[in-house]
Amino acid sequence: MDQISDDHPAGASTAAAQDPQSVLAGIAAENADALVDLFYGTFMQDAEGSAFLSHAMVQERLKPGLRRWLLELLASDPDGDRVSFEAHQRAIGAIHARVRLPAHLVMKGTMFLKNALAADLVASPLDRDGLASALGLLNSRIDDAMCLMGEAYVSVSTQGAEVDEAFRLFAIGQDSTVDRESQRAALMEWSQSILFSLLGNGGAGGALPPIGSSPFGLWVHHRAGLMFQGSPSLETINANLQNIDRVLLPKIAEAREAGGPPLSALTSRLQTMVDEIKFLLGELFQSVAGLESGRDPLTRTLNRRFLPSILGRETAIAIKGGAPFTLLMLDVDHFKRINDGAGHSVGDLVLRQVADVILDTVRLSDFVFRYGGEEFLIALIETNAAAGIEIAERIRQSLERKTLNLPDGSDWRVTVSIGAATFDGHPDYTHLIDLADKALYAAKQQGRNRTATAQAIALS
Amino acid sequence: MDQISDDHPAGASTAAAQDPQSVLAGIAAENADALVDLFYGTFMQDAEGSAFLSHAMVQERLKPGLRRWLLELLASDPDGDRVSFEAHQRAIGAIHARVRLPAHLVMKGTMFLKNALAADLVASPLDRDGLASALGLLNSRIDDAMCLMGEAYVSVSTQGAEVDEAFRLFAIGQDSTVDRESQRAALMEWSQSILFSLLGNGGAGGALPPIGSSPFGLWVHHRAGLMFQGSPSLETINANLQNIDRVLLPKIAEAREAGGPPLSALTSRLQTMVDEIKFLLGELFQSVAGLESGRDPLTRTLNRRFLPSILGRETAIAIKGGAPFTLLMLDVDHFKRINDGAGHSVGDLVLRQVADVILDTVRLSDFVFRYGGEEFLIALIETNAAAGIEIAERIRQSLERKTLNLPDGSDWRVTVSIGAATFDGHPDYTHLIDLADKALYAAKQQGRNRTATAQAIALS
Repeated sequence: MDQISDDHPAGASTAAAQDPQSVLAGIAAENADALVDLFYGTFMQDAEGSAFLSHAMVQERLKPGLRRWLLELLASDPDGDRVSFEAHQRAIGAIHARVRLPAHLVMKGTMFLKNALAADLVASPLDRDGLASALGLLNSRIDDAMCLMGEAYVSVSTQGAEVDEAFRLFAIGQDSTVDRESQRAALMEWSQSILFSLLGNGGAGGALPPIGSSPFGLWVHHRAGLMFQGSPSLETINANLQNIDRVLLPKIAEAREAGGPPLSALTSRLQTMVDEIKFLLGELFQSVAGLESGRDPLTRTLNRRFLPSILGRETAIAIKGGAPFTLLMLDVDHFKRINDGAGHSVGDLVLRQVADVILDTVRLSDFVFRYGGEEFLIALIETNAAAGIEIAERIRQSLERKTLNLPDGSDWRVTVSIGAATFDGHPDYTHLIDLADKALYAAKQQGRNRTATAQAIALS
Repeated sequence: MDQISDDHPAGASTAAAQDPQSVLAGIAAENADALVDLFYGTFMQDAEGSAFLSHAMVQERLKPGLRRWLLELLASDPDGDRVSFEAHQRAIGAIHARVRLPAHLVMKGTMFLKNALAADLVASPLDRDGLASALGLLNSRIDDAMCLMGEAYVSVSTQGAEVDEAFRLFAIGQDSTVDRESQRAALMEWSQSILFSLLGNGGAGGALPPIGSSPFGLWVHHRAGLMFQGSPSLETINANLQNIDRVLLPKIAEAREAGGPPLSALTSRLQTMVDEIKFLLGELFQSVAGLESGRDPLTRTLNRRFLPSILGRETAIAIKGGAPFTLLMLDVDHFKRINDGAGHSVGDLVLRQVADVILDTVRLSDFVFRYGGEEFLIALIETNAAAGIEIAERIRQSLERKTLNLPDGSDWRVTVSIGAATFDGHPDYTHLIDLADKALYAAKQQGRNRTATAQAIALS
């Protein structure tokens, strides 16, 4: 950041300027505008950040705020007490979260600010001790503010994420069949308005309204974007809408003015694109129907996407002094043989019966997840290792003794292998899943149809 | 952090030690254990942090990780390239989010680490330039890592918050009537088991099973805690459960052994507490029934808790170059007179009819919220100021012309005042709500039954 120190040689020659705090405040004041530009430069170099700041008014509104923040933070005599200082920094963090400013960009920009100010301090006439104390002030004041802002940022943005998700599920759950049909109709209405216009209704040169601002386009942009966030079908729909408005409609308008045959090729291209959008619209709604249900439709066990919520919470309870919990990782032995030999429908039936035995054996307050194809993960709450093995064995033995009746009248017997792992103080639940997985592997290695424990493996 | 520098005088006397990087790495290596303790000291002084670390195994697992991180970060020759460095720091941030370690405590602890290391550098024999460059290295390495960790932390924890909310809504939506009844039954089963045991079934000194580990207690602890997070009724239920297990049951057991009359006083106390829990349980389920619906039951307009999601998103779309949107804040004129004069049911009818007119006038893709008692907030997407005023006037005039028919055969006429504000580049949507609110106030001041705009106020 040499340009800053060169432009504004830091530190006046008075005696007061030798005071580290005054030197720091002086440098900040002299370079405030350059520092603010430096901060926003960080944003402009980042794709997400520059999209955010592309609106000139945003920069206009934010820059004076940053300038004031910096000068107050590094002032010789900060006004106000600790309580109001903390409240102020937290309020800024909350605003950043509300305006969805990426926190890491704020941190990175602030880092550049610190480096630039530090370089100016080094270039100042402060002696070794004075420099050290000015650098110390600089770092601790800014880091202190960043901690407070960060705390508020995380709290407001996780709250925001909760509300976003609640609204998304509300919007999807609302009346998605009606919604699908009304949007299909809205799409057809738009395409009809184009065709009528081309056939001379509304005057020979009648307007060709863009699809982007039609009711369908507005829905895609403002509602579907929220309901189907990140869906590839939605991205294709968006690309098609843009293509229609930016390429196809102008070409159609041009061909109409010129008259002649190319128009029909263009309208049939339009037809194809509208059909594709209609197809993708159906896919969009179908994709959430399965995803949003909390349970696996085949086995009625919990969807594994809830794992982080449930195991994260159980780990926190166990750490805070609750009883430990035990995970069982259960896999159906030789499932591939069943599926390949007797067919998928028999495979499905086996999975459903295994799930039933598990659900009948555990307590209502335990959690059973479909973890993979033929794998289930069972979280036995407030259950130590010995009790966990007992329940695992009860499940395994029930299945061993059970004859599954198939629709064709034949019988089938299945066995399962189980790996058990009990909470061992590790705060990351993925560690415990790994242990249960390793124990399951050991049970398979030892000949299947048995329960192995993570503890036993560790000892062997 | 003098004790650290005193215990381990920093900087060896060799020539290599005069290199700022080696001095820094040397000080970090010599003081690693003390630094790690200092970091965890921050956590132990914080209520949330100390609860997290109270489990001895957590500290045992985390400390070596922190030690390794610090030494690698400040080493003279960091191994690996930038890509793997970034991946590593991000992985740590993700783990912190997964284990729900409060991010601000990590930042605060790291700040203390930096200060301690800086103090040791100041105490080293490095000259002014060497000191400045060692301090620069220390700060930039740690800040760099914190930025990367922070980015991953925010991303994983907001994702986690989304899944938590999805699971909460799933659990509530699941079968809450069945759930309420089964939990009521579970509570009764427990209390019956105590009474039977006191009446001599299961042997004279039959066990008195704690309610905390009964099916009902497990449900309260592991499911209700998630479904009804932060509810005061749930806190009272929890307090009652603890009171029963820690105070009442031991007293009952004691009284039973001693024999005699005090037992009946204690069992009637138990009865009262169980009744209270039963009552609170009903309240718990009732409280979510209203809260969780996305719409206001009276007017069918959107629940205002979705405001942050919707306006945050529309602001982001407008900033990223979309068309501006306009907010209308609408208030029913003299609503108090209607409510007080004609009764609440007429007031409700008026609100419902006003909502119907609004919903009939706006497009399907606009958003209408019940903002307060007789206030509605309308977000008109992709609508500039002129079009916004037009829609506001259409709503106002429809209502002015409309006669509301009351069930008693009488007629009623209502008017509304509207404040309009159009997106002006401010990234915080609360600013726009304020503007619409001020415009509404101006419309009321100017005599009601009119639309005022934020722009006009700014000019006047």
